Amino acid sequence: MPLLGLLPRRAWAALLSQLLRPPCASCTGAVRCQSQVAEAVLTSQLKAHQEKPNFIIKIPKGTRDLSPQHMVVREKILDLVISCFKRHGAKGMDTPAFELKETLTEKYGEDSGLMYDLKDQGGELLSLRYDLTVPFARYLAMSKVKKMKRYHVGKVWRRESPSIVQGRYREFCQCDFDIAGQFDPMIPDAECLKIMCEILSGLQLGDFLIKVNDRRIVDGMFAACGVPESKFRAIGSSIDKLDKMAWKDVRHEMVAKKGLAPEVADRIGDYVQCHGGVSLVEQMFQDPRLSQNKQALEGLEDLKLLFEYLNLFGIAEKISFDLSLARGLDYYTGVIYEAVLLQTPTQAGEEPLNVGSVAAGGRYDGLVGMFDPKGHKVPCVGLSIGVERIFYIVEQRMKTKGEKVRTTETQVFVATPQKNFLQERLKLITELWDAGIKAEMLYKNNPKLLTQLHYCESTGIPLVVIIGEQELKEGIIKIRSVASREEVAIKRENLVAEIQKRLSES
Amino acid sequence: MPLLGLLPRRAWAALLSQLLRPPCASCTGAVRCQSQVAEAVLTSQLKAHQEKPNFIIKIPKGTRDLSPQHMVVREKILDLVISCFKRHGAKGMDTPAFELKETLTEKYGEDSGLMYDLKDQGGELLSLRYDLTVPFARYLAMSKVKKMKRYHVGKVWRRESPSIVQGRYREFCQCDFDIAGQFDPMIPDAECLKIMCEILSGLQLGDFLIKVNDRRIVDGMFAACGVPESKFRAIGSSIDKLDKMAWKDVRHEMVAKKGLAPEVADRIGDYVQCHGGVSLVEQMFQDPRLSQNKQALEGLEDLKLLFEYLNLFGIAEKISFDLSLARGLDYYTGVIYEAVLLQTPTQAGEEPLNVGSVAAGGRYDGLVGMFDPKGHKVPCVGLSIGVERIFYIVEQRMKTKGEKVRTTETQVFVATPQKNFLQERLKLITELWDAGIKAEMLYKNNPKLLTQLHYCESTGIPLVVIIGEQELKEGIIKIRSVASREEVAIKRENLVAEIQKRLSES
Repeated sequence: MPLLGLLPRRAWAALLSQLLRPPCASCTGAVRCQSQVAEAVLTSQLKAHQEKPNFIIKIPKGTRDLSPQHMVVREKILDLVISCFKRHGAKGMDTPAFELKETLTEKYGEDSGLMYDLKDQGGELLSLRYDLTVPFARYLAMSKVKKMKRYHVGKVWRRESPSIVQGRYREFCQCDFDIAGQFDPMIPDAECLKIMCEILSGLQLGDFLIKVNDRRIVDGMFAACGVPESKFRAIGSSIDKLDKMAWKDVRHEMVAKKGLAPEVADRIGDYVQCHGGVSLVEQMFQDPRLSQNKQALEGLEDLKLLFEYLNLFGIAEKISFDLSLARGLDYYTGVIYEAVLLQTPTQAGEEPLNVGSVAAGGRYDGLVGMFDPKGHKVPCVGLSIGVERIFYIVEQRMKTKGEKVRTTETQVFVATPQKNFLQERLKLITELWDAGIKAEMLYKNNPKLLTQLHYCESTGIPLVVIIGEQELKEGIIKIRSVASREEVAIKRENLVAEIQKRLSES
Repeated sequence: MPLLGLLPRRAWAALLSQLLRPPCASCTGAVRCQSQVAEAVLTSQLKAHQEKPNFIIKIPKGTRDLSPQHMVVREKILDLVISCFKRHGAKGMDTPAFELKETLTEKYGEDSGLMYDLKDQGGELLSLRYDLTVPFARYLAMSKVKKMKRYHVGKVWRRESPSIVQGRYREFCQCDFDIAGQFDPMIPDAECLKIMCEILSGLQLGDFLIKVNDRRIVDGMFAACGVPESKFRAIGSSIDKLDKMAWKDVRHEMVAKKGLAPEVADRIGDYVQCHGGVSLVEQMFQDPRLSQNKQALEGLEDLKLLFEYLNLFGIAEKISFDLSLARGLDYYTGVIYEAVLLQTPTQAGEEPLNVGSVAAGGRYDGLVGMFDPKGHKVPCVGLSIGVERIFYIVEQRMKTKGEKVRTTETQVFVATPQKNFLQERLKLITELWDAGIKAEMLYKNNPKLLTQLHYCESTGIPLVVIIGEQELKEGIIKIRSVASREEVAIKRENLVAEIQKRLSES
């Protein structure tokens, strides 16, 4: 049977089981008839073909589909975020999902996850974008734009080990606001912090705090403590873990893994526990080590001015100068900040949420220059809202409270109690659609009234218009409120006006 | 000079030009002094380092950045499209940008461009999504959802040769609406056509026509004309080119390249010139060849019913039964359709736009079953709006008419005629922001009044609030209308109320 050699393994197994079944009535003993073998071969071939697609029903690791429920929550949150960006005069823009690989390399520092590279299919080497900041800088340099206040909402991709429980995925959404241009010091920086406050207050996520520091103070502190310059970024990454790890573990990492002298680590340890308001800034001006460092002094001067503006914006009490904030990304050059939600005592039924940072950003004055042929710099400052974490928090709260969201916006359902009313329903719903009213009906020739009403209740449609024999004869339509179950009859020609009146009242 | 061996080519060139410049005053004749050579080496090394990033200032082939101008046009068009989808009761959803490669293979037929594959970085083999339909089918099969009316707006990627002039890119946006589920025939199909009409009318793109056919009629026609079944899809792809190519060229492709017998091609030629309304459907029932084909008759029955519903929806005159429509994608199984804009006589100053199809879709009853382990089918019908082409058309029209769009929504600008008023401006703008008013100011300590007013004019901000010494002393604020240049003084405490009143009036 040379034919069998062509069968895939799965088909082989099916064929074997066919061949091992009892012989048919017309066969004698152990010898099988030709027809039975032929049938077995045919069946297994068919089965192999049908089953072939099975193995593909999977979604890539670390990604997920967003269901209509997810989308509704997202839409509300993104609307609020984007409104705030627009309130501050930002323009929208977008860049491609991928960039030349070389555009993205050496921008993100040691703690960056892996970038997704595209396969070399005979062309340029490309990678999926890792954030929205580097593409923005590339855009500014390419378009020679020297001044721009823009927001950008889009997906980015990072090949990190996904810990799905905490709402981290390999594909996620970022919402960025940035101000590019040469301006007087700290005015745009202060506005970025104001925007973070407006968004976090607006979303009602509970109490929050924004930690602020300056890359020059971080570097000045490292220099003053005796960290070799080559280790600045690596030690900065360790410092950044202080919100998740105890000081002794961070110290261990710095000394044992990154080769820092223990006494240097201890000097750093004294600084990184410092946090406070503008008075801490003043205090640091007097610090015997920091005050010797030119860079650090520049940073402190700027922070002092920043706090003045934050006071005028009425948000100074939300901001904490925190010497343990270092921010991992390579491209920051000045002020850096990170917003964290404060863990309020767990309310009844609410699970404690450990979400870490929900917004962050800083000043990056050198990035655009890296893309400019002549190295012309465009100073930038910006922020990124951690919307995925915010989505997660809001979804968890809704789950806990048993809140449900409508996933459609349908206002009116067109129903009939009788058979053979499809034509009338189609005419009616056309009137509604053409008047801009959101309307649905069942795609059945003769649906049961109960099925139709049940559909409204389960999907939250508030109004039903009902047409049947009697209504058709009398030239009327019944309007039913799904909530109260009250029905009123109105003249057919008043339908749209009456519906619009009711919708505007509710 | 072994040092030179280390220099990159670019640096070499710079060095050479340095060495060739006239000798310095302290040198004699042709012999150059050491210091000059050393300086040249240093300068060129430095330059090489600074210039290193130059090569990366590029965007991937076939992609583009979307500027704020683009984004404003897009936002308006997408809003209209999404409103229509919601009016018809659709829910939103999203899927990842990439899928397992095997999810996407063998779904798109011969005319599909190349898929973007991701590099194998030690995990699954992934590809960027090629459309939104296959991911939707995969989602339905995975989530075991049997009924769903959803829309999806998202980017898709195709490695086709980009012809940027016609607005085709390798990254583009799709807007899909689909109805999944087992329903009575042609009701959802008719709604898809209704939606296409509502969107194309709403966008005011000029007159349009929707060509309709049925995959079963196409296949029945091919069978009746004597096309071997193995060539159905290939010949279908040729037929699809009839909107861009003359019949004789399409015929040549079918005969010379795809090996079709000339008499078979001629039989097809008779059919594909037929187009018309429901009367053509009736006529085809009587066609001696087609009426012998069971599949074709099923398709004709459905089209007859479809036209009945299209009449009730009031859109029958926009629909043309067109036997030359075949639709390249493999997954269609029933009704197929494609909307084209009708070229109106070119208006004065308007360039003729050859845009081809602006929306398309059809029924695909087998696709979900390909992903279901047990082959369970979920019948689907849907449509995709060719928004990129629509963006292009609208942008071209605006260009021709010299129309400009505002790229920000800022309502109020905070200005001062005096120096040292930054603090007052910051306090004022905080009041506005906190009241939800969209406001901007210049990020300068002491901007000139003229610069501030010019900014309002150039960006279209309608109102200016002005604070200066006199205003501060008297507790007032001036409000200036940018258009009329009129100024009125109001009490400082009435600022927000007065602004809100003016904005609601305009």
